[in-house]
Amino acid sequence: MSYPPDKLLYMRIVVLAGGIGGARFLRGLKQAAPDADITVIGNTGDDIHLFGLKVCPDLDTVMYTLGGGINEEQGWGRKDESFHVKEELAAYGVGPEWFGLGDRDFATHIVRTQMLGAGYPLSAVTEALCARWKPGVRLLPMSDDRVETHVAVDMDGERRAIHFQEYWVKLRASVEAQAIVPVGAEQAKPAPGVLEAIAEADVILFPPSNPVVSVGTILAVPGIREAIAEAGVPVVGLSPIVGDAPVRGMADKVLAAVGVESTAAAVATHYGSGLLDGWLVDTVDAGAVGEVEAAGIRCRAVPLMMTDVDATAEMARQALALAGEVRA
Amino acid sequence: MSYPPDKLLYMRIVVLAGGIGGARFLRGLKQAAPDADITVIGNTGDDIHLFGLKVCPDLDTVMYTLGGGINEEQGWGRKDESFHVKEELAAYGVGPEWFGLGDRDFATHIVRTQMLGAGYPLSAVTEALCARWKPGVRLLPMSDDRVETHVAVDMDGERRAIHFQEYWVKLRASVEAQAIVPVGAEQAKPAPGVLEAIAEADVILFPPSNPVVSVGTILAVPGIREAIAEAGVPVVGLSPIVGDAPVRGMADKVLAAVGVESTAAAVATHYGSGLLDGWLVDTVDAGAVGEVEAAGIRCRAVPLMMTDVDATAEMARQALALAGEVRA
Repeated sequence: MSYPPDKLLYMRIVVLAGGIGGARFLRGLKQAAPDADITVIGNTGDDIHLFGLKVCPDLDTVMYTLGGGINEEQGWGRKDESFHVKEELAAYGVGPEWFGLGDRDFATHIVRTQMLGAGYPLSAVTEALCARWKPGVRLLPMSDDRVETHVAVDMDGERRAIHFQEYWVKLRASVEAQAIVPVGAEQAKPAPGVLEAIAEADVILFPPSNPVVSVGTILAVPGIREAIAEAGVPVVGLSPIVGDAPVRGMADKVLAAVGVESTAAAVATHYGSGLLDGWLVDTVDAGAVGEVEAAGIRCRAVPLMMTDVDATAEMARQALALAGEVRA
Repeated sequence: MSYPPDKLLYMRIVVLAGGIGGARFLRGLKQAAPDADITVIGNTGDDIHLFGLKVCPDLDTVMYTLGGGINEEQGWGRKDESFHVKEELAAYGVGPEWFGLGDRDFATHIVRTQMLGAGYPLSAVTEALCARWKPGVRLLPMSDDRVETHVAVDMDGERRAIHFQEYWVKLRASVEAQAIVPVGAEQAKPAPGVLEAIAEADVILFPPSNPVVSVGTILAVPGIREAIAEAGVPVVGLSPIVGDAPVRGMADKVLAAVGVESTAAAVATHYGSGLLDGWLVDTVDAGAVGEVEAAGIRCRAVPLMMTDVDATAEMARQALALAGEVRA
């Protein structure tokens, strides 16, 4: 049994989102449920300070994607972008050069940094930035407190903890991750509105975002996991792993660090039946349905490739339908 | 009597410089005295904080002009410049829009702001920036302390003090300046190296920069005027006023505020014979030579239009020749 169309109109949906995968899923969700009230809880564990500026890659990817400013091909950064600031910084010998900040993107970080410096919390800054982009969702950082995902790696004969962006963007996850640590998460508080949105939600969705460094980091903020588990509403996720490999990105690298196999079923059981009520796997992973259901999570196999907005909207409809099913 | 060519080779020259006029004069001086040891004391009174960044327009104009990065047509800012950051800031509703910061220029301010935030004084930051631009002179800010030129104006029925840049760039000096106040100058100390360079100079030059808000602001830093007066070496200036009007800019507006006529002679006597030994006026102002000399300042009339580098180099040679004359 799926939600009848009229229920979608007034539905309050909470989505835990990372960057590209979360942003693209949200675009499909908006098409599937155009009148739903969508609150996005965004990962800030991959935030980084560069050139004295506060950069929030995941929040910006959601904001730009839903606001029509994204570079569609690469999935992050601004379209019609130039890189003159970065070129000049490099000419001054100021790096890092491996992080691709474009000129238009710089403006976002300048405004954010100036507002943070003036005393506004990140949630208020994000709301102000969204006043321009009008993403059509309420975008909340998971926390106003600083959380920074570090990756422990063995390099040059010693174990080092490096910033997630250094691991992901600079090293392209080419070194084995020994551990993933969301530094500061234990002391962080959910941003204003986060727990309220979860408590008032009709449905909670985990898009096909990275289960460790995106959704996992959000869940590491004390209170968020508990609020979701206790919300008493359907919690449905979509597998970011299709055919034993990440749909995009390098999720397998960080899954290994937390001892989870790169399979659609393993990610579901990693979240666990205490959190997840339903799980969508791709049709190529239909064989995993039984294993997921045996773990107490309702599971369906449907196409999970976000090839375009229509295909993504259908994924969102399937997720909402599964939510209706587990509720019934 | 002029300096013989071999004396030029080892001459130590100190130049007090504002922005465009100072920078262009310096380019001519470098051509005229390619082996001279030139120290530039740059005005920082027109520095401004924009978008959380420290902008030093005069220092940058000197650095870009001598380092080959200037926009030749406008005389300030970078060549091959784009304005995407500024466009985006405007799209966020963040101004001011009247100050033309380009993308390449932004990088300079980002590096400067980051270094200042890390605790480096402006003089060290300027040296670091010049390591890239290699201006061929030693560029020193007049002070590491914050000095901000304010202009008192009567607007909307009340007297207000506005930042010099707001007066100059936004209002285009369209309102009468009631007073010019270099806020903070009285408490400022000359930057490291400034007094030493003056004490060791063979010649001190005032280029055709604004006598009030450029050279005047530098002289307002306690110790600098006295050091120049006591240096015991020729101090020669070039009139920024030709035919009773500023060669460029709106110097007449700020001269009026300090009660000085916009004439080549009046500017010379404003500096005074206690400071100036020699003064160059344009050939159209040859009639002023007698008045300037009557005030105790040696004066010559020579072409003073910086139409190209060769013409400017000839002006510099004339200034050095006059320095030799007053010394003799």
